[in-house]
Amino acid sequence: MSAPEPGRRKVYRHGDRGVHVPAQEVTLSDGSSLLLYDTSGPGADPLEGLPALREAWIVDRGDTETYKGRSPRRRDDGRGARLRQAEAARPPARPARRARPGTAVTQLAYARQGEITKEMVFAALREGVEPEVVREELAAGRAILPANMNHPESEPMVIGSRFLVKVNANIGNSSVTSSIAEEVEKLTWATRWGADTVMDLSTGADIHTTREWILRNAPVPIGTVPIYQALEKVNGRAEALSWEVYRDTVIEQCEQGVDYMTVHAGVLLRYVPLTVGRTTGIVSRGGSIMAAWCLAHHEENFLYANFEELCEILARYDVAFSLGDGLRPGSIADANDEAQLAELRTLGELTEVAWAHGVQTMVEGPGHVPLHKIRENVELQIAACKGAPFYTLGPLTTDVAPGYDHITSAIGAATIGMLGTAMLCYVTPKEHLGLPDRDDVKAGMIAYKIAAHAADLAKDHPGARQWDDALSAARFEFRWEDQFNLSLDPPTARSFHDETLPAQPAKTAHFCSMCGPKFCSMRISHDLRAAAEAAEEDLAQAASVEVHLREKAAEFLAGGAQIYQPVGE
Amino acid sequence: MSAPEPGRRKVYRHGDRGVHVPAQEVTLSDGSSLLLYDTSGPGADPLEGLPALREAWIVDRGDTETYKGRSPRRRDDGRGARLRQAEAARPPARPARRARPGTAVTQLAYARQGEITKEMVFAALREGVEPEVVREELAAGRAILPANMNHPESEPMVIGSRFLVKVNANIGNSSVTSSIAEEVEKLTWATRWGADTVMDLSTGADIHTTREWILRNAPVPIGTVPIYQALEKVNGRAEALSWEVYRDTVIEQCEQGVDYMTVHAGVLLRYVPLTVGRTTGIVSRGGSIMAAWCLAHHEENFLYANFEELCEILARYDVAFSLGDGLRPGSIADANDEAQLAELRTLGELTEVAWAHGVQTMVEGPGHVPLHKIRENVELQIAACKGAPFYTLGPLTTDVAPGYDHITSAIGAATIGMLGTAMLCYVTPKEHLGLPDRDDVKAGMIAYKIAAHAADLAKDHPGARQWDDALSAARFEFRWEDQFNLSLDPPTARSFHDETLPAQPAKTAHFCSMCGPKFCSMRISHDLRAAAEAAEEDLAQAASVEVHLREKAAEFLAGGAQIYQPVGE
Repeated sequence: MSAPEPGRRKVYRHGDRGVHVPAQEVTLSDGSSLLLYDTSGPGADPLEGLPALREAWIVDRGDTETYKGRSPRRRDDGRGARLRQAEAARPPARPARRARPGTAVTQLAYARQGEITKEMVFAALREGVEPEVVREELAAGRAILPANMNHPESEPMVIGSRFLVKVNANIGNSSVTSSIAEEVEKLTWATRWGADTVMDLSTGADIHTTREWILRNAPVPIGTVPIYQALEKVNGRAEALSWEVYRDTVIEQCEQGVDYMTVHAGVLLRYVPLTVGRTTGIVSRGGSIMAAWCLAHHEENFLYANFEELCEILARYDVAFSLGDGLRPGSIADANDEAQLAELRTLGELTEVAWAHGVQTMVEGPGHVPLHKIRENVELQIAACKGAPFYTLGPLTTDVAPGYDHITSAIGAATIGMLGTAMLCYVTPKEHLGLPDRDDVKAGMIAYKIAAHAADLAKDHPGARQWDDALSAARFEFRWEDQFNLSLDPPTARSFHDETLPAQPAKTAHFCSMCGPKFCSMRISHDLRAAAEAAEEDLAQAASVEVHLREKAAEFLAGGAQIYQPVGE
Repeated sequence: MSAPEPGRRKVYRHGDRGVHVPAQEVTLSDGSSLLLYDTSGPGADPLEGLPALREAWIVDRGDTETYKGRSPRRRDDGRGARLRQAEAARPPARPARRARPGTAVTQLAYARQGEITKEMVFAALREGVEPEVVREELAAGRAILPANMNHPESEPMVIGSRFLVKVNANIGNSSVTSSIAEEVEKLTWATRWGADTVMDLSTGADIHTTREWILRNAPVPIGTVPIYQALEKVNGRAEALSWEVYRDTVIEQCEQGVDYMTVHAGVLLRYVPLTVGRTTGIVSRGGSIMAAWCLAHHEENFLYANFEELCEILARYDVAFSLGDGLRPGSIADANDEAQLAELRTLGELTEVAWAHGVQTMVEGPGHVPLHKIRENVELQIAACKGAPFYTLGPLTTDVAPGYDHITSAIGAATIGMLGTAMLCYVTPKEHLGLPDRDDVKAGMIAYKIAAHAADLAKDHPGARQWDDALSAARFEFRWEDQFNLSLDPPTARSFHDETLPAQPAKTAHFCSMCGPKFCSMRISHDLRAAAEAAEEDLAQAASVEVHLREKAAEFLAGGAQIYQPVGE
């Protein structure tokens, strides 16, 4: 459950057409309040799942139908299936839903037709923009609103360079670690700390069932990499993969409600040799699976070869593409090399194919890139992919700090976000070393919320600075509790303060442990401010505040010693 | 003591003129090795202090003299003096040294005269450049080599935009916390993690004695803010400060061996009113002390008024200026405002005065700046201060994450470093909340070594990428121990790996806990690599590797199934 912090509460903003959008309200000590974007959802319920917020919206549109979906099989849970146990614990199934024949049901299709859906109204209210702005960006392909009709629990959100920079958190088990309950807990934990979407990258036991639990409890869009599950179905033998196994897996996941899928369709057979001279070869798991398949069969990547059929399937459920960068650089040495850029051009080509089928599409990016080569990545992506949203992993700006790659990559993420990247895939401190635990998920989320917000400020996103201004005003006025409550991580800010000055009076004291009680720079500023306020009446005569300040400065130089109190006593 | 990590050892590189420069040698499993820049010094000795590495160099130049320096008084230890106890523990005093009358003994003066000092040879060897490059940059004022003759224990290093980006760590007690032993331990700890300089910002008990201990154990240049001690001498009453108390404090610190001093001489009386309308007023402690003094006396800042005399004192000991930005912005709202920029122009003027006296000079910068306003800071500083090295605090790129300001500011620090800032003052997770403890010092240092190295890569600093390349090659080849030993923080990287895969065989295993033993992207790349090597003989016929790769691709497309092994079994 995601109980809000003390000093915060969940509230709902009411928009047009009965849409209610959650926000975290921080009530300040002067009675005013600030609303923060909220991704935490109504709280996961491990028995029932979340309420189906969007179900009525979808049904009311009248362009979809329910049907008896594909029956789950033992193989869906992969090699490590512990099905009997998992089956018992599975949440109640809902009939699958898809587009009626001949209808176009994606948010892209609606936007192109000029229709503003409730999903668009919802997302716009969260962003603080007009719904028409969301529609326009979706119609142009510059944004996506991932919203599989089989995941009606999700709270709509929009990913695009004109909107707040989003953060994705990866979770998922591997053959070495983890249980279903742990993964649901990671999901809830990640959204509590602001994850805008979550990718389930499970490769271990009970893949299908783990995903079912995640989806039914997810207030945010869920992404996957279907090739991971497909590989488990063929016992991990890449060469045994086929379009048929993959397609079946995609349909299975569409029916479950996955909102976007990473598809490594740009790893073409002829690009694979371009990676031979690299320092770190192919580091994308999906990329290397497809490369292995291509090499084993000496045929073109079956995702590329069957891309149009894949588009038709995704369009039917409104699942979005996340076109995977299977050849992304895994080291500073390999950044912006020919393998990476060749694949990017192919992703641009595939973007247009997907758009032709009305499928919402974003494009994935690196990886490891030194700071001075980041701009080139964004510019090439925008050009090649005609403005489709960019979704990058970091990038890490150096390779030398395993254990701290949330930081090496937050640096790159903030920069690439400022330059127009729409969503950042978080990196945790465990990157390159192991699977993230709960603490790592939080550390990664915090680093990336910082990066995303720094990018929002740098993009001058309307409203982004309110948060900084409110916190800095609280800091300047020694409103410690307000400062804690406004923090990205209130309990940490509070506990750090309390380590040196735990006494309750220190929470309202006009100093902190840095300068001590006697001399504080902010206190002097207050004396100045007080003096300025005392002279408030002069303001009436001054043409403007600026003139007033200049006059004050002149007056001050002339030596009006009575205006200011001596400070420091 | 700074025992090197397992897998690393301290070695010395031998340069011209008998100069031995320390480095950390990482020995790799194939017997090759990589040398990393080393700031850890020969190891602090709390009884004797460090050996006086540079003493003979200084004496041999024959342009200085020893003299009976100023006698320490009780007042030097400030209001919180616990002198009797501190006196007993004080390291043995060395006679004070200064320039002979009529001589110019700063590294700037030597450089201008075309003289390459041993200090320059030492610093050049550390940087991997020719000594002449160091001399040139010093002569032009674009770099400083802080090296007070009374701190002969320090290992010379150079700060300038053509060199590796440096990191300063702040330590020091306050009236609320800390002991002398703790501060010396923080110094040793900070240099172990790569601090290039350390600032002692003590404001609490035993200020003089704490600094003495720090200096005698410091292998890196030490900076201070003398106004902090001067304020303690007048019982914390800013209005009771005077040029005489300040000058006496500066001489005291020059004789002790402080290498650079932050001087807030740019906080002019007429600029103070410019801060009244700010969100966070004046946040620099030194800036607010001087503002308070100016207001109380309605006179011009005595540091500005007496700046030429101050230059003469600093020149005598070769102490460098760090021209403080007392009006730096303390919030995103106040970034790049008129108060900040007015002061910057004055710092430019003062830089030229200092240079006229042969005093080495760097200039301090903000603070809190959103990402898109960072470039303007660097460009204005370079223009106003004629290329004098820029030394910034962060900047923090958002205000909303107290508890994580090492990250909010590492983002800004990497960016400002890339754009030409020479040294970054670290920020710890405790910024705004309390005084850093040992863990915070390490967290701040690691975040800033990442930022500095990311900037070095972005500046294409010769040699910077070797480190990344070595680590990435180790990663790709599953040389886990090499990867740990090459890490910025080896014990953390090792322990994170061991959390999920502690068994010794996993250290040599060709997988990690992320993908598990069955399917690993890097393993596939190896199969590719192996195939490429098997075809090595073809290379002889190929005009170049590139042509060879193209041929391989073509051959591959033609279907030579025998070249590659099916993968995944």
